[in-house]
Amino acid sequence: MTEPVFKQIAIIGAGLIGASIARAAMEYGVAESVSLYDADADVRRRAEAIGLGDVADTLAAAARTADCVFLCVPVGALSDVAAETVPAMKAGAILTDVGSVKGQASSALAAADDGRVHIIPGHPIAGTEQSGPEAGFASLFRNAWHILTPREGGDEAYAEAVSQLEAFWRGLGAKVETMDAARHDRVLAITSHLPHLIAFNIVSTAFDMETVEQGEVVKYSAGGFRDFTRIAASDPVMWRDVFLTNKDAVLECLGRFSEDLAALQRAIRWGDGDTLFKEFSRARSIRKAIIDAGQDSGAVNFGRNQAADAPEGDGDETD
Amino acid sequence: MTEPVFKQIAIIGAGLIGASIARAAMEYGVAESVSLYDADADVRRRAEAIGLGDVADTLAAAARTADCVFLCVPVGALSDVAAETVPAMKAGAILTDVGSVKGQASSALAAADDGRVHIIPGHPIAGTEQSGPEAGFASLFRNAWHILTPREGGDEAYAEAVSQLEAFWRGLGAKVETMDAARHDRVLAITSHLPHLIAFNIVSTAFDMETVEQGEVVKYSAGGFRDFTRIAASDPVMWRDVFLTNKDAVLECLGRFSEDLAALQRAIRWGDGDTLFKEFSRARSIRKAIIDAGQDSGAVNFGRNQAADAPEGDGDETD
Repeated sequence: MTEPVFKQIAIIGAGLIGASIARAAMEYGVAESVSLYDADADVRRRAEAIGLGDVADTLAAAARTADCVFLCVPVGALSDVAAETVPAMKAGAILTDVGSVKGQASSALAAADDGRVHIIPGHPIAGTEQSGPEAGFASLFRNAWHILTPREGGDEAYAEAVSQLEAFWRGLGAKVETMDAARHDRVLAITSHLPHLIAFNIVSTAFDMETVEQGEVVKYSAGGFRDFTRIAASDPVMWRDVFLTNKDAVLECLGRFSEDLAALQRAIRWGDGDTLFKEFSRARSIRKAIIDAGQDSGAVNFGRNQAADAPEGDGDETD
Repeated sequence: MTEPVFKQIAIIGAGLIGASIARAAMEYGVAESVSLYDADADVRRRAEAIGLGDVADTLAAAARTADCVFLCVPVGALSDVAAETVPAMKAGAILTDVGSVKGQASSALAAADDGRVHIIPGHPIAGTEQSGPEAGFASLFRNAWHILTPREGGDEAYAEAVSQLEAFWRGLGAKVETMDAARHDRVLAITSHLPHLIAFNIVSTAFDMETVEQGEVVKYSAGGFRDFTRIAASDPVMWRDVFLTNKDAVLECLGRFSEDLAALQRAIRWGDGDTLFKEFSRARSIRKAIIDAGQDSGAVNFGRNQAADAPEGDGDETD
C-alpha cells in the first residue's frame, strides 16, 4: 500500500476521467477520501449509487476541505467552474484539471487564481470512447502519460505542490511529464486531435454514401472502418471544445493532412504505383518504430527517402 | 471433427492469408492435405520450416492434384499467376482467390479460364497488419465475413462447386455471403480501402510536422494516433494494387471524404460549435449501431489478436 499523497481529493465532474481518478485514488490508496460533485443531479445520483465517493450537493461542499481539486469538465466549461471552485478551496490546496487543450485550460484556471491556491494544469493521455460515471475504472491511467503544465517561476511551495501532484499521478500508475502548454497543444493536435477529427469525418462520409447501404457499412466494418468508429464514439461535447480551443494547431495539421492526401489522390488517379508503394512503406516503418520504441523513445527519424529501404511485402493480403 | 470438404487444397502465395488458410484447413479438418507454393524461395523455405504443408518446388506441382486452388497473391499479380495455374489444374477442380478488389480479380481469373475448372473469386474480410508465412494463424477467419463473387448463369456442376467452397469457408469459421464483384468493390472502397488510405496518410503527415518532434509523436501516440499506425502497417504491395485496381470507387469515396472534411475545417475556423457537436454526435450514434449489430465481438478483428502488437488495452486512446 502506498502512503496516501493527499488526505482528501475532490472530483468536480463525474464523467469517465473523474470517475476513474476517484476509483484509482481509493483502490491504489493514493488518497484517504474522495469527495465528488457534478452539475448534473442525475450524474450525482448515479455516482452515489455506484459508490464513487462522498457525493456533495454543491461544488463548494465538495471542494471545501480537499487538499487537491480535480476539475474534470470539458475545456469549454473550465472558466466558469474554476471561478466557482477557487473561492471555496482552502488556502494552500492544489487546483488541477484534465483538459485536452492546455493553452485554454491554463488561461481559464489562471483567471480564477486568487493567490491562495496552487494552480497546476494537467492532462492524462488516456481514455476510452465511453462516457459517464459508470465508465470509470481504476486502471485507466496505468502506463499512460500524464502531462503537467505548471507555470514558470513558482516559489518553493508551488514546486512542492507540483511534486505532490506528480506523486499522486505516479501513484495511479501514470508516467508524468512536464512541458509548456503551447508545446502540449502542438503535440496533441497531431497525435490526438487530428486523428479524432479524421475518424469523426470518415464515419459521417461512410454513412452518406448513396451507392452503399448503411447496413453494408456496418456488416463489413471489420475491413478497417470499425477501428475509426471506435475513436469516433468519443464524447461530442469534449471534442467540440477541443477543436474550438486548439484551433490554430489543428488547422495547421489539417492543412498538411489535406495536402498529403491530395498527393495520394493524384497518384491513384494517374496510376502512380511507385509513389503509393513508397508512401505506404514509409507508414509501415513508422509503425515498426512505435512498437520497437515501446512508445518511450525519442530516437526515431523518418525521412522521406527512407521509404525505399522498407522491406518488400511477402505478397499477402491484409483484408 | 468436420468431414473434410476437399481431399487436397493448394495454396499459391504463403503470406498471412495463405498461411492462415493452410493452418485453419488442417486444424479444423476441412481439407485432408495442403500443398503450398510461393514464388519466393525464401518464403517456401520458411513455410516448410514451420510446417505449413507440403511445400512444392513449382506452382504446377502444388496445383496438379488439388481439388481447390487458392491464389493468395496481390491483386496485381493475379493475371500472371492464374494463367500459370489453370493449365496445371485437374479438370473439375475449383480455382479461387482472396484478392481485395473483385472486379480486377474476376477479370484476371476469367482470362485464364480454359473451361475445365470452376472459377469462383472470393475475399475474406479478415487480416492483421502482419505479413509473411509466420503471421498465419488458424482462427483468423472465425466470425469474419467471406464474400464470394461467382459468375452468373453457371451450370449445375458450377453451383455444386460454389456450395463446396462455401462449405469450406464455413468450416474455417467464416460467415459466407455472395454478391456481384462491382458491388463488393463499392462496399469495400468505403469500409476498407478509404480507411487504409487515410491511415497511411495521417502517419506520413504526423512524421513530416516540423513543429513537433517525431519522438513526441511516438511517445504520445496513445492519444488516438496509434490506432492509425496499426492499420497503416499493412502490406504496401497489396495496398498499392488495391488502389490501382479499385480506382473509381476509391476516388469517389475520397472526394466525398475531402468535401466533408472541408466542412469540418470551416466549422473549426469559424468557431461553429453547433456544427461540430452535431457531426460528432452523429458519428457516435453510428458506432452504437455497429456495436448493437454485434459487429464488434473482437473474435476476428483487425490486428487485435496479434500478440506482437503494441502493449495497449482494449479501451484506450480517446484523448
